[in-house]
Amino acid sequence: MSDRNAFRVFRPIATRWLDNDVYGHVNNVVYYAYFDTAVNGYLMERTGIDIRQLPALGVVAETSCRYLKSVSFPDRLEVGLAIERLGTRSITYRLGIFLENVSNRVAEGRFVHVYVDARTRESVEIPDVIRAAVQPLLSETP
Amino acid sequence: MSDRNAFRVFRPIATRWLDNDVYGHVNNVVYYAYFDTAVNGYLMERTGIDIRQLPALGVVAETSCRYLKSVSFPDRLEVGLAIERLGTRSITYRLGIFLENVSNRVAEGRFVHVYVDARTRESVEIPDVIRAAVQPLLSETP
Amino acid sequence: MSDRNAFRVFRPIATRWLDNDVYGHVNNVVYYAYFDTAVNGYLMERTGIDIRQLPALGVVAETSCRYLKSVSFPDRLEVGLAIERLGTRSITYRLGIFLENVSNRVAEGRFVHVYVDARTRESVEIPDVIRAAVQPLLSETP
Amino acid sequence: MSDRNAFRVFRPIATRWLDNDVYGHVNNVVYYAYFDTAVNGYLMERTGIDIRQLPALGVVAETSCRYLKSVSFPDRLEVGLAIERLGTRSITYRLGIFLENVSNRVAEGRFVHVYVDARTRESVEIPDVIRAAVQPLLSETP
Repeated sequence: MSDRNAFRVFRPIATRWLDNDVYGHVNNVVYYAYFDTAVNGYLMERTGIDIRQLPALGVVAETSCRYLKSVSFPDRLEVGLAIERLGTRSITYRLGIFLENVSNRVAEGRFVHVYVDARTRESVEIPDVIRAAVQPLLSETP
Repeated sequence: MSDRNAFRVFRPIATRWLDNDVYGHVNNVVYYAYFDTAVNGYLMERTGIDIRQLPALGVVAETSCRYLKSVSFPDRLEVGLAIERLGTRSITYRLGIFLENVSNRVAEGRFVHVYVDARTRESVEIPDVIRAAVQPLLSETP
Repeated sequence: MSDRNAFRVFRPIATRWLDNDVYGHVNNVVYYAYFDTAVNGYLMERTGIDIRQLPALGVVAETSCRYLKSVSFPDRLEVGLAIERLGTRSITYRLGIFLENVSNRVAEGRFVHVYVDARTRESVEIPDVIRAAVQPLLSETP
Repeated sequence: MSDRNAFRVFRPIATRWLDNDVYGHVNNVVYYAYFDTAVNGYLMERTGIDIRQLPALGVVAETSCRYLKSVSFPDRLEVGLAIERLGTRSITYRLGIFLENVSNRVAEGRFVHVYVDARTRESVEIPDVIRAAVQPLLSETP
């Protein structure tokens, strides 16, 4: 069974020369730039708005990654996105990194956005526009 | 009680202008560059050798981070290092990010190095020189 | 007249969330990652080989960039490539950054590769496979 | 004669593991992060204020770098700062990268800040607080 079944949406990511470190593979740090870019890019494209201008911002509270296979520039990658948990004030994303056209993931991770007021930075509820945008990432959309 | 008690060694980290993202704080990705730099920098300084030339390399198998408080360029930081688990073929580090001269951590993480043969990339035992270097990071060395 | 006429080949570049700095635009540093990726990506694709394994490596001797308009994640960009000077031991690339489907460049730069022996790092002639690969980037190919 | 004589102020820069690319040396892109950090860090320290909150912002209009010797993590570096030209609306910095305690530079560069209104992004005069802060970087301070 393909690891891709665990994800609802895929976002392309192009590797860069500097993503590789001295050991000749994409460095562990860089996977988090892929996660960050995939989640925020999805939200901006799906909402059609600049989420950085919303009164509530998604601040990253927790991230993790397991590295299963190495990849290397100029590999072409895809980030799979799904929702692990949709709370009132936070969203936990499940993420998978794939080589283009390959079923098995090379890495898997989690990424937690907590919503805060853009000015006070105090915890607030997830904006409706964001909540609507992530519906397609839920495993079951009733 | 200070969060610093959980760590054996501290490494200075200077923030950079580009560490900050559009929200004005150090981006979640960058904390992993601090972890990477602190662990490898410690190993190189403590062993006195260029660990990149060893026949066995530490490849990163898993990382995670919880972000507790935001920091921002030009803050001066320190990374606390400790060993959570010292196996035969892998080392799990516990890491804490601190503002200079502040007791409470701003972030905490884990970082797992698995040792592999530099040529074949197959799993091997931790080199003796590395095993010796991390002894000071163990909480209790029986 | 379109600024694009000055370039022979265009390479797509996807911006990342972290490319933006605190002022909300792609930071000046990141343009050089685009250059680096475009030049090396072109050479790898065109030669069909992993240029990092060649006996002669292209080491960067000089770079520059003029920033004309700001861009911002999630803009989609293209890097235009041309040769300004093809020497015996070095190649000077002329580069332009464009927004997708826009005629005017947002930045323009130079990037000089000097070829060195992979082991000794002493200056050597440009490998034949590289010299052939860059022919399509010359303004006039007699 | 020491290359250091051409600079008025030196700022420490600590290399990071990921600064090195696949060839084992600090990648050409990363030098610009050193420049960016040195200039803005100097201005923030010298003015004692958060320059990102000023009504006029320094936007980077042009940068360049010549790479003379390679450096590598965990080298400790210093960035030398001087003013090449202090205009009404722009500042051209001359920069040098040095290994700690070494007289000869490993790289030299230029970095041009043009001041713009923080809201409209239109060109404005250099704020007085910035103009005062850069006086010590001028070759001759009458």
